[in-house]
Amino acid sequence: MQTKRANKYGFCFGVKRAIKLAEQNKNATTIGPLIHNQKEIDRLKVDFGVNVETNIGAIEGDSSVIIRTHGIPKNDLKELKNRNVNIIDATCPFVTKPQKICEEMSKEGYEIIIFGDENHPEVKGVVSYCTSPCQVVLEKEQIKNIHTHSKITLISQTTKNVSKFLEIANYLIENCYEVRIFNTICNATFENQESVKILAQEADIIIVVGGKQSSNTKQLLNIALQYCKDSYCIEDEKELQKEWFSGKKLCGITAGASTPNWIIDNVENIIKEF
Amino acid sequence: MQTKRANKYGFCFGVKRAIKLAEQNKNATTIGPLIHNQKEIDRLKVDFGVNVETNIGAIEGDSSVIIRTHGIPKNDLKELKNRNVNIIDATCPFVTKPQKICEEMSKEGYEIIIFGDENHPEVKGVVSYCTSPCQVVLEKEQIKNIHTHSKITLISQTTKNVSKFLEIANYLIENCYEVRIFNTICNATFENQESVKILAQEADIIIVVGGKQSSNTKQLLNIALQYCKDSYCIEDEKELQKEWFSGKKLCGITAGASTPNWIIDNVENIIKEF
Repeated sequence: MQTKRANKYGFCFGVKRAIKLAEQNKNATTIGPLIHNQKEIDRLKVDFGVNVETNIGAIEGDSSVIIRTHGIPKNDLKELKNRNVNIIDATCPFVTKPQKICEEMSKEGYEIIIFGDENHPEVKGVVSYCTSPCQVVLEKEQIKNIHTHSKITLISQTTKNVSKFLEIANYLIENCYEVRIFNTICNATFENQESVKILAQEADIIIVVGGKQSSNTKQLLNIALQYCKDSYCIEDEKELQKEWFSGKKLCGITAGASTPNWIIDNVENIIKEF
Repeated sequence: MQTKRANKYGFCFGVKRAIKLAEQNKNATTIGPLIHNQKEIDRLKVDFGVNVETNIGAIEGDSSVIIRTHGIPKNDLKELKNRNVNIIDATCPFVTKPQKICEEMSKEGYEIIIFGDENHPEVKGVVSYCTSPCQVVLEKEQIKNIHTHSKITLISQTTKNVSKFLEIANYLIENCYEVRIFNTICNATFENQESVKILAQEADIIIVVGGKQSSNTKQLLNIALQYCKDSYCIEDEKELQKEWFSGKKLCGITAGASTPNWIIDNVENIIKEF
């Protein structure tokens, strides 16, 4: 069976960088699981002694701590520094940027509006850098207390979609004199979706590797199914069924944003043997 | 005959202010006609000795010069100052703002994009304050040489419409990391249009006072005709025809942006006598 991977799939730049940092810092502790894939967490534990700790208060001094891709609130970082901990910052650079923007724009007297989910760890981290009034909204209808002379800075959670961001931007442009817009959206998720769309039009069967509960994996499968009815989602190579491939020539492969390459390699190797 | 004026009509704030300044400064010279209404220019000449001069080179030292509502290029202003001329600045404050924005944003290293007509005197004046790269565009397709890391400031000619402005803003937000948007659109023209729309639904006849060649006057008449088939455009009271009003109870009155109040008063006084 011939295989072809999507142009973009699996880990984004920030996640790849975080895993590399974890591998380079043996026996370090991550605050919360580094990514949402237990198999990869297990591998980092077995091969590199990387531990997981969710409670900052339990971190011992002089230990090495890895900050996850979506960052942590400013005060948590301060507390870690006070404890004389060796900090390995794996915060994605695409997340560090909105943090810095919030810090600088607050100083310049801008009110901050963040398009995002207030409960998301990334957003909690970003918000912690605001020292001026800040609102986190998912819809323009949620925006409060703005007027013609408001000086507004608008940013977005990195994984949000651009059309909704523009809706909020337009509302602000129409209602405020000055709006300073930083497009902090990272296109990785959408690039994976665009890529599987193209691949599914070419392939006879599509295998999506990813968690069955992962929302971005489900989206990849749905897009694949629109263009190739023989599309399947699996968590690893053990779930492959030989009969899916009978009579097929080209198998397209993609993966969710939390799927490590070595699982995708295992899957591809089995398929090639069919 | 009962009359009712539109909620908003005729001169905008900036034009009213300019005429007041001309009245307060007898024997001053305006650079180009102060507004596009010859009857008002004649009145200012006869009653206040206000002259019109289009050539800056012909302005004599120690004379008083009125800058029109849409401003003049920076170098022309400098030349006037060098000649030791007494400058009365009637530049509309809504136009002074984009001039200042261009000056400040250029200093901060932003590229400037102006949504407007490059041949309009207001735009020529505003552009003259840019010291960084500047583009004047009417369509997003005209924007050149921008990239993800461009730092862009976007402003608008004051009389342009907001939906096209948003189109350009959205294009920039999607393609550049930082876009600083100043909504410099003045709503006066659109307020006049909204007001005649409401009045025409209530009145039995609409009289639009304004120049037959004036594009904003034509727009007012077209909107009035949509809601009241007995709508007429006149330049002054001499054009009124008594038969238009037979059997009508309420006459709505509006006026183009270059029509002075005293002409509207003359028109209204005649209609009341019908």
